Amino acid sequence: MKTYAKQNFPVSEARRYLEPGPVVLVSSHHKGASNIMTMGWHTVMEFTPALIGCVIAEGNHSFGMIRNSRQCTINVPTVDIAKTVVDIGNCSGADTDKFEKFGLTPVAGAQVTAPLISQCPVSLECVLTDTTLVKKYNFFVFEVVAAHAAKTPRYPRTIHYQGDGQFMVAGREMSLRKRFKPEML
Amino acid sequence: MKTYAKQNFPVSEARRYLEPGPVVLVSSHHKGASNIMTMGWHTVMEFTPALIGCVIAEGNHSFGMIRNSRQCTINVPTVDIAKTVVDIGNCSGADTDKFEKFGLTPVAGAQVTAPLISQCPVSLECVLTDTTLVKKYNFFVFEVVAAHAAKTPRYPRTIHYQGDGQFMVAGREMSLRKRFKPEML
Repeated sequence: MKTYAKQNFPVSEARRYLEPGPVVLVSSHHKGASNIMTMGWHTVMEFTPALIGCVIAEGNHSFGMIRNSRQCTINVPTVDIAKTVVDIGNCSGADTDKFEKFGLTPVAGAQVTAPLISQCPVSLECVLTDTTLVKKYNFFVFEVVAAHAAKTPRYPRTIHYQGDGQFMVAGREMSLRKRFKPEML
Repeated sequence: MKTYAKQNFPVSEARRYLEPGPVVLVSSHHKGASNIMTMGWHTVMEFTPALIGCVIAEGNHSFGMIRNSRQCTINVPTVDIAKTVVDIGNCSGADTDKFEKFGLTPVAGAQVTAPLISQCPVSLECVLTDTTLVKKYNFFVFEVVAAHAAKTPRYPRTIHYQGDGQFMVAGREMSLRKRFKPEML
């Protein structure tokens, strides 16, 4: 699998990659072990601080690791590793070292101990900032504290889950910039 | 603009249309007036009850209408009306009747007074169920109480916002159903 050299970019621009709604890989690290989960329920919540809200179901091995370590990384995979993304979501970190099993390369981040995934072109380092809705909805609010993306592809061909094993693959790009008021951009 | 005849479908399947992350049109109705806003920050939160979390910035005219009426509809537009979707987001309901200005057809819903938008192939009737994070993040939790979709297109060609006036248009479909454990579907 292809690996990506990534460069820092401003955390306030994390929305560029998350707002379109791709399936992401969330990595965690706690008590010497790392794990990965596949996640589809997330939303941008603010530019500055750069906030992301997401649902991590309590049944996931990652739930406790992230809640206790209070951090994770959110990595955006492309269609090239779609099968791996699905397989990661169909086994548990309770009995599997997913980095090893799927041949993924953990890379140290700058701000958190949860590893970045080298096979994803975009990785966001996140710190848990609000657990108000965790008990009721398994809803976590993270602040993106560092952001990294490969220079190419400029628009990663992400995958978007529709349920029932079905995915939409990111298609063509379209600019409607001229229709926006400057303050709305 | 094309209009769609829609049929009811189970609210627990609303994720099929929202989880891929499209830009949506949110309609509201309060004190005799209706409004529409363009929204990109939303996530599925639960299947049953069918919960959707989303950010509605306080500066939007829709903010007060939705907070006070405690309901809205979430409509999923396609690329065919992308310019209208952008234009809706670049004017305010404070001084504009957006249904009239943009030639959109309001249709009565079954459960809420906020109108469905006939030019969108998918419309979800929503009731506000949790305002815990409204003050801090403008984050609303809605329950989908009725769901309507056109039979075709089966996979609407949605648009996905990346910031800076740039959109990704939904591309090809891909099934990886065979790789899922039955309980993960």
